[in-house]
This record gives sequence, structure tokens and C-alpha cells, in this order.
Amino acid sequence: MEPGPSGAITDVPGVRVGHVTLVAGEGPLAPGRGPVRTGVTAIVPGDDPYAGRLAAGLAVLNGFGKMTGLAQLAELGRLETPIVLTNTLSVWRAAEAVATWVLERHPEVGVTAPTVNPVVGECNDGWLNDIRGLHVRPEHVLRALAVASAGPVAEGSVGAGTGMVAFGWKGGVGTSSRSWDDPLTGRRVRLGCLVVANFGRPGALVFEGVPVGKLLTADRRPEPPVAGGSVVAILATDAPLTSRQLSRLARRAGVGLARTGGVHAHGSGDFALAFSTARAYPPFLDDEGPYLAPFFEATADCVAEAVWRALLRAETTVGRDGHRADRLPADRVLELLRRHGRAERAEAWEAWLVRRPTGRGLSGGGPDDAGKG
Amino acid sequence: MEPGPSGAITDVPGVRVGHVTLVAGEGPLAPGRGPVRTGVTAIVPGDDPYAGRLAAGLAVLNGFGKMTGLAQLAELGRLETPIVLTNTLSVWRAAEAVATWVLERHPEVGVTAPTVNPVVGECNDGWLNDIRGLHVRPEHVLRALAVASAGPVAEGSVGAGTGMVAFGWKGGVGTSSRSWDDPLTGRRVRLGCLVVANFGRPGALVFEGVPVGKLLTADRRPEPPVAGGSVVAILATDAPLTSRQLSRLARRAGVGLARTGGVHAHGSGDFALAFSTARAYPPFLDDEGPYLAPFFEATADCVAEAVWRALLRAETTVGRDGHRADRLPADRVLELLRRHGRAERAEAWEAWLVRRPTGRGLSGGGPDDAGKG
Amino acid sequence: MEPGPSGAITDVPGVRVGHVTLVAGEGPLAPGRGPVRTGVTAIVPGDDPYAGRLAAGLAVLNGFGKMTGLAQLAELGRLETPIVLTNTLSVWRAAEAVATWVLERHPEVGVTAPTVNPVVGECNDGWLNDIRGLHVRPEHVLRALAVASAGPVAEGSVGAGTGMVAFGWKGGVGTSSRSWDDPLTGRRVRLGCLVVANFGRPGALVFEGVPVGKLLTADRRPEPPVAGGSVVAILATDAPLTSRQLSRLARRAGVGLARTGGVHAHGSGDFALAFSTARAYPPFLDDEGPYLAPFFEATADCVAEAVWRALLRAETTVGRDGHRADRLPADRVLELLRRHGRAERAEAWEAWLVRRPTGRGLSGGGPDDAGKG
Amino acid sequence: MEPGPSGAITDVPGVRVGHVTLVAGEGPLAPGRGPVRTGVTAIVPGDDPYAGRLAAGLAVLNGFGKMTGLAQLAELGRLETPIVLTNTLSVWRAAEAVATWVLERHPEVGVTAPTVNPVVGECNDGWLNDIRGLHVRPEHVLRALAVASAGPVAEGSVGAGTGMVAFGWKGGVGTSSRSWDDPLTGRRVRLGCLVVANFGRPGALVFEGVPVGKLLTADRRPEPPVAGGSVVAILATDAPLTSRQLSRLARRAGVGLARTGGVHAHGSGDFALAFSTARAYPPFLDDEGPYLAPFFEATADCVAEAVWRALLRAETTVGRDGHRADRLPADRVLELLRRHGRAERAEAWEAWLVRRPTGRGLSGGGPDDAGKG
Repeated sequence: MEPGPSGAITDVPGVRVGHVTLVAGEGPLAPGRGPVRTGVTAIVPGDDPYAGRLAAGLAVLNGFGKMTGLAQLAELGRLETPIVLTNTLSVWRAAEAVATWVLERHPEVGVTAPTVNPVVGECNDGWLNDIRGLHVRPEHVLRALAVASAGPVAEGSVGAGTGMVAFGWKGGVGTSSRSWDDPLTGRRVRLGCLVVANFGRPGALVFEGVPVGKLLTADRRPEPPVAGGSVVAILATDAPLTSRQLSRLARRAGVGLARTGGVHAHGSGDFALAFSTARAYPPFLDDEGPYLAPFFEATADCVAEAVWRALLRAETTVGRDGHRADRLPADRVLELLRRHGRAERAEAWEAWLVRRPTGRGLSGGGPDDAGKG
Repeated sequence: MEPGPSGAITDVPGVRVGHVTLVAGEGPLAPGRGPVRTGVTAIVPGDDPYAGRLAAGLAVLNGFGKMTGLAQLAELGRLETPIVLTNTLSVWRAAEAVATWVLERHPEVGVTAPTVNPVVGECNDGWLNDIRGLHVRPEHVLRALAVASAGPVAEGSVGAGTGMVAFGWKGGVGTSSRSWDDPLTGRRVRLGCLVVANFGRPGALVFEGVPVGKLLTADRRPEPPVAGGSVVAILATDAPLTSRQLSRLARRAGVGLARTGGVHAHGSGDFALAFSTARAYPPFLDDEGPYLAPFFEATADCVAEAVWRALLRAETTVGRDGHRADRLPADRVLELLRRHGRAERAEAWEAWLVRRPTGRGLSGGGPDDAGKG
Repeated sequence: MEPGPSGAITDVPGVRVGHVTLVAGEGPLAPGRGPVRTGVTAIVPGDDPYAGRLAAGLAVLNGFGKMTGLAQLAELGRLETPIVLTNTLSVWRAAEAVATWVLERHPEVGVTAPTVNPVVGECNDGWLNDIRGLHVRPEHVLRALAVASAGPVAEGSVGAGTGMVAFGWKGGVGTSSRSWDDPLTGRRVRLGCLVVANFGRPGALVFEGVPVGKLLTADRRPEPPVAGGSVVAILATDAPLTSRQLSRLARRAGVGLARTGGVHAHGSGDFALAFSTARAYPPFLDDEGPYLAPFFEATADCVAEAVWRALLRAETTVGRDGHRADRLPADRVLELLRRHGRAERAEAWEAWLVRRPTGRGLSGGGPDDAGKG
Repeated sequence: MEPGPSGAITDVPGVRVGHVTLVAGEGPLAPGRGPVRTGVTAIVPGDDPYAGRLAAGLAVLNGFGKMTGLAQLAELGRLETPIVLTNTLSVWRAAEAVATWVLERHPEVGVTAPTVNPVVGECNDGWLNDIRGLHVRPEHVLRALAVASAGPVAEGSVGAGTGMVAFGWKGGVGTSSRSWDDPLTGRRVRLGCLVVANFGRPGALVFEGVPVGKLLTADRRPEPPVAGGSVVAILATDAPLTSRQLSRLARRAGVGLARTGGVHAHGSGDFALAFSTARAYPPFLDDEGPYLAPFFEATADCVAEAVWRALLRAETTVGRDGHRADRLPADRVLELLRRHGRAERAEAWEAWLVRRPTGRGLSGGGPDDAGKG
């Protein structure tokens, strides 16, 4: 198994990602005025999933969250909209914006055709962001959809990840991918992942097996977040899989999260959703084990990697009331990896760190929110 | 078992209901301008469920729907907001309005406390209503919450039921209740139900066991609705029940729906949610069967009765593009009941029909939507 | 939609049914010695489902039961053994017998191949039968598998239905089928159902919408069963359906049961399982509604019909301690149907009643259990 | 949080454990004759859980397994029998034996009372054991129940763990416990865990964050097991928890398994079940987070620890066809921990290793199976 060209969810052909980052103001919280540290991330499979629904499955690893669209997705095994991620209190507004996006493309919806089932996930950025202020507006969602592009994906404190905190450090958006040759169909298979990481108890971070959370806390204790946080993991593949199989795959996101030190804490809404762009069934198999095994391994690997990337790309952020989430110190992490016999992994991460992210699929927040690329 | 004083979900002490009915315009559909045939119904348990969460359970009988808040409700077994019902495309806006309602009462939410999980259900009224026009605005939701009152509940073409169609007839809101003495606790138990009925194939209606749908179709075929419809059943009790027990109870809503001729059609989002106002656990029982049996029977009875009441109280409605949903002809139904050996039931229904609904907990839709009580 | 040639689950090509009926002794219960009123019913799809697994789905309508194999069936969406039904305390022994049946055919199982997942359902016949005596032996299970045949299916007090009670009357095995032309694939589709009916409160029976339970109780009150009973509904089709779709279909078994007066009582283990003999996926559809609609209607119809047939074919049975379950009086039921405006249905049932059941796929219980055809 | 006196599931007052170990023969597999490498482990909460049912919850982490009793346990949230663990093909026989154990104590079962719902879990020991031979007999199950005792629990290649393989090494039974003061009730809370570890890809073992599987494989490659294996984790506590809360806790078993290198492989039936001996509800809480948080952490910790203990206590076993599963070399593991910066953990494990297990609650397999303590 190897990563794709961008090492991102966009390595799955047809999948695009767009971010809108909203950063404005500083100082004490004034609900409705800021400070603003939030955003929107859109994952768009194809041009219009409503026109060609995709097989999809999900795993509710800890249901303390507000993701929309789950009941219908589970019943029909289909995704029919882009997936949008944002902050918790903006989830319904974002869902309406996604619905509007479909309504514009499909005048038949609600007239001669059924309605639309937007899928919007969320994490709580309320420790850094004026979440009560509802600063995400419909146009931000539409812009994230509009700027979504293939290729490299900006990570860290961007889009829905702008105000997120994980393991006491600055969290955010991370992505990753794997590909392999499927012996069954003889085709190249791609699996991509995007997470918004906003979970994990301070001190609990595990990185490549090393309890860096505990070890770094000895140096300097990061400030704790206000609540348990959350994490959403989106998985995409171009291989044909049924919704049942995609649900099995989504459940393995929990393995990846556990590798980073998460325990699905009570207050953490941990959701995973997987979709296939194939719009086809796989062969009808008596034993799907050999076909699925690499998906399960790749899912666990990709989710852990995406969380670690989110932490390493994020930047120190000071938000409302001077709340500060420090960037995970990459050099200290690498040093700890080396001191704990993981020199090989340290080198791989070092190589990755020097690759400049290109920041495509990225938009600021418009005129009256100070956008930040 | 006997019905409570109002024969309504409000017979459960502390439960209030409020409707906002939006009716405006007529003629051809002009998306965004009308005609408007929609509304909002709010079920408010106590003054502020966020300040004292209620045990709750749910049953997804057919998940083709967009009800919000389900994952968290299932995970925590708790309801923390009023329940609001409206049309499908307004569900996210209504959820944000409910969140706002809580935010106003609780300045700690999103600052020092976690967020809020609004529960909003929906049915598709797009055959009569300009559903694409999103005519339900946040203030309508807040008004439904504000006018919610105890006592009799308006039924039929009101609130969320304004534009609904069931079994080819005009559908809408129905309610019902039962009460009995619980031998275990020695206390009076009350169970109440409220449905928004927007489901059922034309011709499939069964009324007290009589296939009135088939028999009336012989006289005159009602116009078919555009899609499969949906139904939401809300169950309330003042008895202490765990969330697991409330989920078992919610599942029996399906029995009541089946008695009216429903089959959980593919396109029908059939959801049931049950909550207890007791804020206490029941006794820890080795055999919960005797305690639960009357709840199961009462749930099936109440749900069927509420659907029939919704149909009998609804009024003929002409909506967008001249689409017309006729009132179920009560006299013909009673006649059929008598011709099919159900004279006793016919008399009970006749007695009920002459009781004037008082229309409390009801509000029109404000200045620029022609409200209708 | 019309019934198939046998009006039985065996109308689905390749599906065979076998019964072993165990009747011996009378008088007071002497655990271990009798009286025996029990049996086994086997539903065998194809010659060897382990050699070609079938897509399958399930619905746990009320989980107070002991059906084996459900977790694996839900995870993999596959049925890999015949389905066997018997009494509650014999379910594990029967499961081992089914496993043995596969082990004999497949020497690789447990050596170079994984194990086997027998699916065995049960109802409690302890009111008539010495259920503690464990009179079902492995050879009875193997014989039911061996005598399974296509064509007409014996109903009523046979096989697993021998000691069952429903709605205070003698219950047992019932079957039914429907077929229709599928416009999508242009092929004839068959759906078959087999139930073991052992559920329903005395007095609650509804027959074609008529509350015959209440009306007949006025004449003569049947003796009550000891506990809540149970019901298992098996659905088979030759159309290609995914396991998710088959689960949706299985859930509609609850609609059929509700039409007969059931409420999924607390103590009633109500399980439905659906499988497809097609061993293929359906077309990948954007809207599966039109394809599935007839399956949903047919499932509800078939399940209700199978329960009513079980009751009409069963014979008055006196079991342990002189417990007596009377045959539902068919003539009284037909008369009630006629008096309640259901003359057409009465005639259809009358025509069915005079058709002699042929009793194929039926075996007595062997040397030391007095077998009864 | 600290371990209890025995560091075992028996630290939860009233919980007893009994093993029966069956070892006989060697050489080529002769199905029905051996070699035998299997056994039974019983976890007995109180003297008779049928006489006082316990709140219980479960998590199906990967449903490719045959655990019995799950549907009823999920529906009623109650455990009513001891839990028995054994090999896959013996699961139904063991379930009947457990039922018999209850039938003997309760003559009312199946006569005036409902039936009984035995909970029996399994893993596949077919790589070492003649699993087709069904060498576990009912008396072995009854003996495991009879010898169950409080105090230290034998671990490794005993009882149900006798023939198990994990990560390419000899697997088996492991246990662990934690206790803490609950601020809510002011009482000491105990949580105990017992696993049968038979899962994990060779080379994938992670031990305290160190990829010992990869590192040891460089030295010497262990032989691979025939199939994906399985794992069952049983969690016990004396704190009052609802079945919903216990299910949440059971789900965190997956976190512990992930920490050891598991991915819930396709062929691995991964089940977790949690019960409370309190027979009482907890306080009715608005926010259960603070109450549950230590349970979640303790569950993840205990499950990982129990798996590692199973591996460290197991002994090299040669089974059918000369299949050999080597003992995980403890000294090499400790050395790797030290080389990877985990000296502190290495010392803790070293101290544990020198504590002699006492082997209570242990029985050989009777006259014709060569028992091994």
C-alpha cells in the first residue's frame, strides 16, 4: 500500500475539497461579534451527487454530535449531496445551504421529485471561537462548495479546522490516502480520508505509538479545551463497495482514532462516513474477506495519519478570551520518536513536513470576515 | 384504559403544544412566492428541558427522512429541547431556531457548557405547499414555542399539518391520550401522542379495521400525492421509564400506523420518539413485562387514533397548482363503519366529532403570511 | 400481485420445506417424559447454501428471543445454512445439528476454512409441550432437512408449529406467496413467506380487519397461554436484492403482524428474516423505491395471510396438564367476516379452506416419538 | 485509578471465574479423536443471576461470530445467566448446558415462567484444536461453572484460551481490573475485564505503543493462524449503570483492542459485553459525562492490559498437525520496551511477571480428556 500523488482524499478521482476560513477579531468574547475562529470544509464527490447517488455507509462511534442526514443515509445506503463540515451550532444553517445548492441545480426537487438529504458534520470550536455568534453564513458554505478543487488539500487551521483543538494542542483538518492493486478486479484502488480533529484529552496524544502527550506535558502543560470535542472522519474510495461494506469500513475509523490516543470520550461526537464513487456493486462474493482486508488496514492507517497531519500542520491560534491552542511542536515530536526507537518514522514525517502545502481549494471568508488562506 | 380530559398529548402534565399555521396565496406554483400551505407545531415538555433533561427513546421505522438530533438522543437517551415539527425543507432552519431558543435562555451554552441538540421532525408538504420557498421562518418556530399551551390541542390542517396529505385525503395533526393505574407504583400513568400524518397510499386507508380507503375510492378517487409522504409520532408519558424502555415503546408506534393501512412505504420517513417527563428511573425490575404491557397497548391505540383524528379534523385544502386534498368525508366513514358491523365504534367517533375543538396553542403566521387559526 | 402455484414459500424456486412433528403422551407434565407436542421445521434454500451463500437481512421486531446466527448474518449480509425453527429450549441443540449437517458436507470447515453460522429460530411451546424435556433431538433436525421438499407445504399443527398457541387459539405454521412482473428487470418475481405463529393476546385477533378475537370471546373464552409467545417470519425471494434491501423488507413483517392484532408484546420474540436466492446484486439504482414497493406490500400481505392460514389449518390440541388450545372455528370466522361486510374475503378464504393440504415435506418423529403427519 | 487486589475481573465483588482445560493427544488431525486443545471459561456473577438479573450492555465490534443471547440482552438490557466462553463449534452445546444449569435451579422455567437466555461467546481454536471433534461436553461447562471461584484467575493457555492464537503467538485468557473513588456516590468503584484473545495479524502486535510484532518478526516469523480469529471481552463492574451506559462502556473495548494492534479484521468476531452487579439504577443525571469518564478510560486500559497478559502468560503449544504457537518471548518484549523508551512500563510488567499465578477456579477436563491445570 502506498499513498497517492497528493496524499489526500482528492487522490480518489472526482473528489474535490474546498475550505472557507473565517478569522476575525481578538480579545474577550462578545457573542455575535467575535472573536471568530471558524470555517467550512466541503468534500464534493463528482459534480453533482444528487444526479448520481453514491453508495455510502456510516459508523456512529460516539453519538454525542449533530451530524445531519444520518437516518436516510443508513436507510438507503446512499449519499446524495456534498459533505460539509463546520462548527456545531452552524450545522443546521450549513445543511440548509447545501439543500439550497441542490435546489438550484434541480428545479424538480420538492415539486415533482422528493426532497434532499444534506450531510453536514460538526465539531465544537467554542473554546477559540464565538460559536454562539453563528458567523458561518450560507454564502460561506456555497463558497466552500464553489472553490472545491482536486489536487493537494490545505491542512491544519483551515476551513472547518480553524478553531479546533485536539489533545490540548491546536487541531484541525488532516487528510491522507492509500492505493493498492485489487487482485479481484485487477484494478488500482484508492482510499482517501479527511478528518476534522477536535478530540482527545490533553496529555493523551499518542504519535506512532509514542505517548508524546504525556512526555510533552512534562515540559509544558497545554491549556485544556472547554469540552470533550469531537471528530469527523470522511472516507472515500473509487472501488465498488456496498453500503454495508462501507459501514464496516467506517467502523475501522475507530481503530485509527484509538491509535492517536482517543477513547471516544463521553462528550466527543465521533462520526465516520464512507462513500464510493464507483456507482456500481462489487462482484457478488462468497467470501468478501480478502477483498475487504486492505480497506480495513488502510482505513485505520489513513485515519491515524490524518489526525497526526492535522496536528502537525495546525498553527498556534489565540481565540476568544485569549484562549490559546499551541501548535504541536513538530521538532519535539520527531525527537521523541527518535528517542523511542522510531527513527524511521521520524524521518518519514520529517520528509513530509518540508513539503510545502499548496493551499488549493481554499478561500477566505469574504468582505466582513477577515479571511485567512 | 381511558382517554385523559383533553384526549390529547397535553394530558401528560407539563406538556404543551403550540401551532403556527401559514396559509397564503393560491394558483400556480411560483417558488419563493407561494402558494403557502405549511406551518410549525411545537411540543414543549416543561418550561425548559435543557435545564432538566428528559429520558427519551426513538424508533426509526423507515429512515427516509431528515429528523435532526437522533444520534445524540440515541447515545445519551435524553431529550434536551422542545420537539418541533414542520415541512421537510424547513427542518434545518427550525433546528437552528430551536437552538437559538435555548441559547437565549442559557448564556453558558457554547461558552462554558456544551452545545444543544434540537430535535426537529418533518414531513413533505410539497404537493400543496411551495416547499422550495422556505416560507417557515425562525420567528414562526419561536412563536409556536411561545404560544404552546396546555389543554385541548387543535387538530387537522393546522401547524405542521397544514399542507399534509394522507391516504389520498387531507392529512395533518392528530393527538390522543390514555391513562391507567400502574399497580407497581400505585400511581396514575398518562400516555399522550401527537402525530403529523402525511403518509399512506391512496386507497389504503383502514379505519377501525374497515378498508374505507378501498370502499370510498369506488365512489370517487382522490388525487394522489406527489411522493411517499412521511409520518412523525411523538409519545409522552409522566411515568418513569428508561431510554431503552422508551425506545421499545416508540417501536410500537409502527403497530398503530399499520392499523391505519400504512406499510412504511419506501419514500415515507416514519419516525417515532417517546419521552418521559418523570426525570427519574423506574424501579429496577427483574421482569418489566407487566409494567410495560399497558404502555405497548396504549401506544398502538394512541397512534392509530391520532392518525384517524388527523384525517377527520382536517379540512379540504387547495394548494399550489390547484392541487386539492379533500377532507375525509366523516359521514361516509361512519356509515361504512356501521355497514361493516362497527356500529359501536361509529357512535364513539360521532360523539367525538361533535366536540368542538377549542384551538388553543394556536397562532397565525404573522404580518406577511396570511395566518389561519 | 397473485399467489404462486402452491401459495407457499416453496413457490420461490429452489426453496424446500421439511417438517418433523413430535407428538407423544398425554396427561400431567412429567419433565423429561412428556407430554410431547413439539417439532422442527426446516427451510432449505438450494441444495447447500454454505457452498453458495445467499444475500439476507433481518429485523428484530422485539428481541425477547433466542434466534441464533443474527450477529454474523447482520455483519456479512449472508445466509450460509438452512433455517431451522423449533421450540425455545431446543434452539441450541438444533443449531449444533445444523452445524453438523454442514460439517458433513464440508470437511474443510474448521480445518482450512472458517466455521459455520447456523440460523435457528424458536417459539415457546411450553404451554402444551414438555419443553423442559428437550424432546427435539439432533436426528429430528437432520430428518427435517432430509425430507424438505418443493411444492405444497403442510400448515397448522405441524413441525415447529405443533405446540404453538396464538391469540388464545391453536397456532402453528402458515405460509403464503405472491408473484409479480418486475418492470425493471422484465422478470417474474416471487416472494414467499413462512411463519411460526405463537403470539398474540387472547381476544386480540384481527382477521381481515374484523376483530374476531373480541367477537368470538363473547361466545367462549379460550384458555390463555402461559407467556407472551413469539413469532418468526421467514421471507424468501428469487429477485436480486442487497442485504440492506432485504432488511428493509424484513421490517415490513411487522406490518403484517400488526394487521392480525399483534403488538410485539414484551414477552414475544418477534423476528423476521429475508433472503434472496438470486446470488446477484440488483441494478445499481438512484431510486430503489419503484423496485421495492411491491416487495413491501407483498411482505405485509404475505405475513398476515400466513398467520391467518396457520390459525385456520391448526387443529385443537390438548397438551401437558390437559392444557387445551382450540382450533379457531373457521365457520364462525367466515360468518363474522360476512356479518362485517367482508363477504368477498370470506368467499376467498372458504375456497382456500376446501383445498386439501397435501402434507409433503413432512415426517413423523421416529421410533420413540409418536409421529403425526 | 489502580488495579484491585487480584488484578482480575474477580476484584468485582461476587464475580467468580472457572476454567476447564482440555488437552489430549498430539500429531495429525483425526476429526473426532483429536488432538484436543480447547476448554471452557465461565464468568459467574453472584450465585444465580437468573434469580436476580443484572443490567448489561453489549457492543458488536465485528459481528463475524456466534455469541448467543445477544438479541434478548440488547432488548431487555439484562443478563440472566453466567457467561461462558469456549470454541466456536461448541457454542451451542455450551449454551444448552448453561440453560440446563438454570433449569435445574429453577423448576418453574418453561412451566410457569418464561425460558432462559444463555450468553455464550466463542473464538475459533481450530488451528491447534480438533474443533470439528466437539470435544467440549456439557459436563465440562457445568464443571467450569462449579469450580468458579473468587480471587486470582489463571491466565494464558487455560480454559477457553487453551487453543487460541493471537498476532501469530500463543493467545488465550487474560484479565485485569481497576478501581477508583466515584465522587458522585462517594463509593469505591471496581471495573474488571476478562478477554479471550484469539485475534490479530502476525506481525501486528503493539505492546505499550511499541510495534513488537514487527520487530520480533525480524528475528523469527511465527506461523500464521488459519483464519482471522476472534476476541471476546467481558467487562464487570459493581457500580450502578444502565444498560445503555454499559453498552457505551462495552464499545470502548474496541479502543483497548486497537491499542494492541487489532483492526477488527473481517474474519474476527469481536464482541464486548459489560454488566453491573449493582442491580440498581445510577442517579438520574443531567450530565453523565463526569460519572462515565473513568469507566471509559478504565475499559480501554483494562482490555489492552488483559490482551497483553493473555499473551505473556500463555505457553508454547503444539496442536493438531504439529501446528505450533510460540509463547510471546517476555524477555524480548521487555527489552524492546526498554530500547523504545518505555523502561518504566517494562519494569511494571517485569514485576507482574514474577507474581506467580495461583490457578484457582481451575479444573482439568475429566477422565477421558487429559486435563491440564
